[in-house]
Amino acid sequence: MEADLITIGDEILIGQIVDTNSAWMAQKLNDEGINIRQITSISDQPDHIMATLCESGSKAAIVLVTGGLGPTKDDRTKSALCTFFGTHLTENKDVLEHIIQLLTPRGVVINNLNREQALVPATATVLTNKQGTAPGLWFDHEGTVFVFMPGVPFEMKYLMEFEVLPRIQQIFNTLTITHRTVLIQGLPESMLAERIEDWEDNLPESIRLAYLPSPQSMKLRLSARGKDKVYLTKLIEQEIEKLSKIIPDYIYGYEEESLAGNLGKMLIIRNMTVSVAESCTGGNISHFFTSNPGSSAYFKGGIVAYSNEIKSKILGIDPEIIAKRGAVSKEVVEAMAVSANQLFNTDFAIATSGIAGPDGGTPEKPVGTVWIAVAGAGMVVSKVYNFGDNRERTIIRSSQTGLNMLRLLLLKKDSL
Amino acid sequence: MEADLITIGDEILIGQIVDTNSAWMAQKLNDEGINIRQITSISDQPDHIMATLCESGSKAAIVLVTGGLGPTKDDRTKSALCTFFGTHLTENKDVLEHIIQLLTPRGVVINNLNREQALVPATATVLTNKQGTAPGLWFDHEGTVFVFMPGVPFEMKYLMEFEVLPRIQQIFNTLTITHRTVLIQGLPESMLAERIEDWEDNLPESIRLAYLPSPQSMKLRLSARGKDKVYLTKLIEQEIEKLSKIIPDYIYGYEEESLAGNLGKMLIIRNMTVSVAESCTGGNISHFFTSNPGSSAYFKGGIVAYSNEIKSKILGIDPEIIAKRGAVSKEVVEAMAVSANQLFNTDFAIATSGIAGPDGGTPEKPVGTVWIAVAGAGMVVSKVYNFGDNRERTIIRSSQTGLNMLRLLLLKKDSL
Repeated sequence: MEADLITIGDEILIGQIVDTNSAWMAQKLNDEGINIRQITSISDQPDHIMATLCESGSKAAIVLVTGGLGPTKDDRTKSALCTFFGTHLTENKDVLEHIIQLLTPRGVVINNLNREQALVPATATVLTNKQGTAPGLWFDHEGTVFVFMPGVPFEMKYLMEFEVLPRIQQIFNTLTITHRTVLIQGLPESMLAERIEDWEDNLPESIRLAYLPSPQSMKLRLSARGKDKVYLTKLIEQEIEKLSKIIPDYIYGYEEESLAGNLGKMLIIRNMTVSVAESCTGGNISHFFTSNPGSSAYFKGGIVAYSNEIKSKILGIDPEIIAKRGAVSKEVVEAMAVSANQLFNTDFAIATSGIAGPDGGTPEKPVGTVWIAVAGAGMVVSKVYNFGDNRERTIIRSSQTGLNMLRLLLLKKDSL
Repeated sequence: MEADLITIGDEILIGQIVDTNSAWMAQKLNDEGINIRQITSISDQPDHIMATLCESGSKAAIVLVTGGLGPTKDDRTKSALCTFFGTHLTENKDVLEHIIQLLTPRGVVINNLNREQALVPATATVLTNKQGTAPGLWFDHEGTVFVFMPGVPFEMKYLMEFEVLPRIQQIFNTLTITHRTVLIQGLPESMLAERIEDWEDNLPESIRLAYLPSPQSMKLRLSARGKDKVYLTKLIEQEIEKLSKIIPDYIYGYEEESLAGNLGKMLIIRNMTVSVAESCTGGNISHFFTSNPGSSAYFKGGIVAYSNEIKSKILGIDPEIIAKRGAVSKEVVEAMAVSANQLFNTDFAIATSGIAGPDGGTPEKPVGTVWIAVAGAGMVVSKVYNFGDNRERTIIRSSQTGLNMLRLLLLKKDSL
């Protein structure tokens, strides 16, 4: 069972927005055992829309299309649909009523642009979009299901979860595919590949392995396809168990879990709290913690000490040490961690001080040099890294490395 | 002149990674006056790779392909290329030498996987990849240029900027396209569309307009295509000047500029500094400021006061006020802003306190309720918002709204 995803609109082709919808939709369809054959981004030229619908419709059983259904004038999708499906636009009273009910409480005065959204192709099944004004449109056409949704992510997600996926589940009956993703910190791709080569070579035939590197972490994805979901899940679990014995401390979690979220769970179990003192990461570690719902249970807060003056005034770092050793030094970063831990009255604190760049590097401390410390449980550990000359990557990798240092410290403490 | 972009690999089809490469490449090609006809994501099945290369090669003058060239075993691209271009793999000594020089200082022991990366199709022009081990591959084939690059974003970007784009500039001579993006805060899409309807209807024929909404901001993109770049640029500038008179205070910047970066420039010009006291935004405003190179010139730091205890202990908020009014209140958020301003000795401070959810809402203060304050220049302004029940969106929109409140205050101060 295969599906094609199509996005319509110049925004993606021109590089103004990144297509995050397709990744989300692909995951959801995979969970239903539906394979994505191809993802295609095209402009809103009617000819190109129709050619692509024709091509995808001839190869895939399901074609999901996003974009081209907003309230503004850059949308030419609906008239192309009418031509392709051989129908015409007609006003849908339910959609109009819904638009009025949705916009009036928000203080938006209904205008012609809003009203035009109630015009839908006559042969479409209308899918109510509770999150916005543009409805979803469902067509059964020559043995293929075509669904059109707005490109706004939370509207598309609502329609997928409450309208599209339930219908697909009902109509199609497919093979199942099971994925499991292993999240890894601290091993470069080629070293990882060598460490796990034997394990990889001996994987069962029904399992496929993929390496997915990113600045956040290294991911290994295991996929198994077959009839029996329970069996496949068990098969994957057995392989992951073997893997955990080969690279135990490098695995920090599974699936979409963030390192900060996983660390949060470890802290909750231990009834412990954490704070941060950030210089070069500039609030990003706090942001990583607080992106997780429920983080207030373990994260008490942080200081972003971006200037030396603030490092001394709020964190109480001796200005002489800063002058002598530099703000990017073992002494300063360790003092920052110890001070945050006291100030916030937490069990552990993470501190960072580095040169994110592009300016501020010296021959001894080039751009990318970052000192990271973790204080707590009567210990202070610190280490210096070089994360290279990309500011964004240095901020992310410093943050993840600091979180990972605390994770390893918690594991070490458990084993004492 | 048209180009097709192709990404190879299961990662995107399975939704495990979002395709950010295509957006970046599309922008760069657009700047050269090259239109993107289609972006296609496919798996690493040799048949599908070859069919897609054939299809794109028949429609576009340039085909840029990313993915499928990493050091690990999920890559089958190279053998498909050999079949498609009718050639064979051969070891390239320069590539091997480069791999050894790159990995040895990093402490990576060269293994067979690394060594295999030095095997390249015999008819390819090899593009040296200074950022990684997989080289770029360039083919001239039946009137079309095909380029293959690794999918790791910073490696692809390096190859594009230093190898691919310079060659494309040399070989092709094309029509030019000029874009300008206007960044807007504080107007919903349909209200904006109505406000600017007359202006939009009277745009010159060579200019196209697109609405690009996101949680960060609303973007309006004007695109003009023609022969004379100087003329097109002037034409767009004239239209933007008219637009600025219709919605003056809502426009905060242009192009890729972030609101925090723009605000930073405004602060530098005024020789002023800023600090933050964040509760519900949890470090994200600090992160937005410090994502900009040079932010230490105006951003002195921040407190993430995620617990009431820390709001009192570090920011000195009277616990009685918190008990009486709640942490999410006008009184508390204003006191937070005033306190941060004093503590950091800055000219302005932004404070947030809200319920990002999913828990913590009440009938009076539902999830999404956020109080935001700005203190400075002898004033404190504050306002309550509701950003809905998506935690991530609430964090982003609260951050952007706080930054925008300070921007408006600076403008107001200028006009006094």
